[in-house]
Amino acid sequence: MNILDGIQKPVLLIDLEKAQHNIRVMLQKADQNQVVLRPHFKTHQSREIAELYCQAGITAITVSSVDMAVYFAAAGWQDILIAFPLNRREMERINGLASQMHLSVLVDNLESVDFLTQHAHCPMGVWIKVDTGLHRVGIWWQNKEEILICAQRINSSPLLAFQGVLTHAGHTYHASSPTDVINKAAASKAAMLEVKNYLQEYGCGEVHVSIGDTPGCRLLSDFKDVDEIRPGNFIFFDLEQWQLGVCMPDEMAVAMACPIVSKNADRKELVIYGGAIHFSKETLSYHGESIYGLLADKQEDHFATILPDCKLVSTTQEHGVLRVNDGVFQQYQIGDLVFVYPVHSCLVVQAMGEFCDLKTGKRIPTMVQQCHNGQVF
Amino acid sequence: MNILDGIQKPVLLIDLEKAQHNIRVMLQKADQNQVVLRPHFKTHQSREIAELYCQAGITAITVSSVDMAVYFAAAGWQDILIAFPLNRREMERINGLASQMHLSVLVDNLESVDFLTQHAHCPMGVWIKVDTGLHRVGIWWQNKEEILICAQRINSSPLLAFQGVLTHAGHTYHASSPTDVINKAAASKAAMLEVKNYLQEYGCGEVHVSIGDTPGCRLLSDFKDVDEIRPGNFIFFDLEQWQLGVCMPDEMAVAMACPIVSKNADRKELVIYGGAIHFSKETLSYHGESIYGLLADKQEDHFATILPDCKLVSTTQEHGVLRVNDGVFQQYQIGDLVFVYPVHSCLVVQAMGEFCDLKTGKRIPTMVQQCHNGQVF
Repeated sequence: MNILDGIQKPVLLIDLEKAQHNIRVMLQKADQNQVVLRPHFKTHQSREIAELYCQAGITAITVSSVDMAVYFAAAGWQDILIAFPLNRREMERINGLASQMHLSVLVDNLESVDFLTQHAHCPMGVWIKVDTGLHRVGIWWQNKEEILICAQRINSSPLLAFQGVLTHAGHTYHASSPTDVINKAAASKAAMLEVKNYLQEYGCGEVHVSIGDTPGCRLLSDFKDVDEIRPGNFIFFDLEQWQLGVCMPDEMAVAMACPIVSKNADRKELVIYGGAIHFSKETLSYHGESIYGLLADKQEDHFATILPDCKLVSTTQEHGVLRVNDGVFQQYQIGDLVFVYPVHSCLVVQAMGEFCDLKTGKRIPTMVQQCHNGQVF
Repeated sequence: MNILDGIQKPVLLIDLEKAQHNIRVMLQKADQNQVVLRPHFKTHQSREIAELYCQAGITAITVSSVDMAVYFAAAGWQDILIAFPLNRREMERINGLASQMHLSVLVDNLESVDFLTQHAHCPMGVWIKVDTGLHRVGIWWQNKEEILICAQRINSSPLLAFQGVLTHAGHTYHASSPTDVINKAAASKAAMLEVKNYLQEYGCGEVHVSIGDTPGCRLLSDFKDVDEIRPGNFIFFDLEQWQLGVCMPDEMAVAMACPIVSKNADRKELVIYGGAIHFSKETLSYHGESIYGLLADKQEDHFATILPDCKLVSTTQEHGVLRVNDGVFQQYQIGDLVFVYPVHSCLVVQAMGEFCDLKTGKRIPTMVQQCHNGQVF
């Protein structure tokens, strides 16, 4: 039996070859620029997918929660950065992790440094989060004295090892063009290097610079003086990255497979089993309309080109509504499967909790399943 | 130790007394109007919460997936309506369910009726989905002949029992005021009664009318000639319902508890551990701004009044940004817990996968956990 014939419910398909290709391309870029690739594992949240990175020679990783650090530490990863502001309420678990491996945490204020100084029981690395334009967390890069005071305070603590400064230039996601992505990423990098130089001038020792975000890491060509990059989404990409000009359609490595359950000829709509709990509610502003996905052309049971005028225009809990063109409307019948590219792959992975290997039909679990079952955390 | 002191990560708090109160109020209304309350269980997805309905005397329920029907059937529920268009790919499981209990399914086209006629192996109820204005699925109510043909075809099948016509007037969610909710709900009801009369005139036997949606069921006062109502969200309510004028703030029975991990004095922002994977990405248009939640006042470790100027203005995977007033900014420190009312309780329940009883701290699981662990499905 064909793999697709066995699919009864919404499933997140993964093309492992594309994922491996995407890893190779980013790693090559990192190698050429002599920066460490410390990929963000929040995108896939899976030990099995992590193996692809391991095979490519990656040893240092980024995660966004203590849970994720616990999960990947249990899978054998020994150099983990929790790129999320220190959550004091998890200090006991953080100490537990730090006792087993090279753990680094993130701070963006002096109170958190002081809290760490008092509550860290094992050696751990500490990065200072710097805001270069996203305005979410981090000390504003021009407040160099504030950053310096934090760095000095970290350095004066016997168990804390100051690693350097870290930013997530997530404002590249609001760029108006690929050139704008590059400009924003370049400005962010320049700001970080200025901070680094300032800290080194004031005797903070060797200060590393870590930068993140898939758009910037993909499009920027000059990483001089940067020490590591932390993109995550690039392993799968998605419509958001495609619309930004960051990836090509054939680089998107995940797509949803959903059964059609109803058709409306007047509105040229295919209604699918696949809604907000599968796609997440992430939207993309697409030619002035908010959409939740775009239909993929199906070629030999594989997701191919984007069909740009076939849009997932609405999602409620279990329903999704695809507004399509005449040809597509005729082509598909109730009971058929459609392939839909998601807006944001990280959130779809979280919502679905597992992948289905497009080639073998094998299920690939993520930590979401274990988290919900309380097995690990 | 206080229950809240033990919370390390985002948690979905539930006030069971409020939930029970909300059930009582809706049941009273149903009793007074002599309609059956067949609550939609997609809101809570939990056997334990379902017990509250059982204790209140509810025996007939609504679900939105075959998975959910399997889960609640295993918990002993014997009258289940899957209020989602027939998914042919799950026909084997549907037959399995129908062999154990009184199962009803939903169709909105003749092809699905014919498919059912050919593939149903056990007696099952069939409802026809009618569109009265939401324009998602269903046969448009004025296409009475099309509805009649479906009904006749169902009636001519020995295993299928025609139950009646069903609508979800979800366009009440787009109403501009409580009066507008009432008008939309009343128009939807009137349309349904017209369809019912037409079908009965043409010899379809006894035709039941089933209507849904929490706003309409809460605000409409006249349910004459309606047979059953299927609201779901009313057990918890949320900011969307509150903004529509459907509930009072003190009727909201769930709220997120999230640790503060960073503060920004310039922007008066509290950054919390609690993001898109916890709150979902559902937004509410609130005074011209898209928001993801509103802060609740904390009184004796309980969520109380809404603080209308303290808004969850952004969520990314794990981060949430609360923009608050001066007083609240001073009141909370890094490491404290905040209570945040979600925009859409159904989606938050799905995202979190479990509740935490505000009174006892006990975890209350949902089917999401089992689903992800493959225990049941």
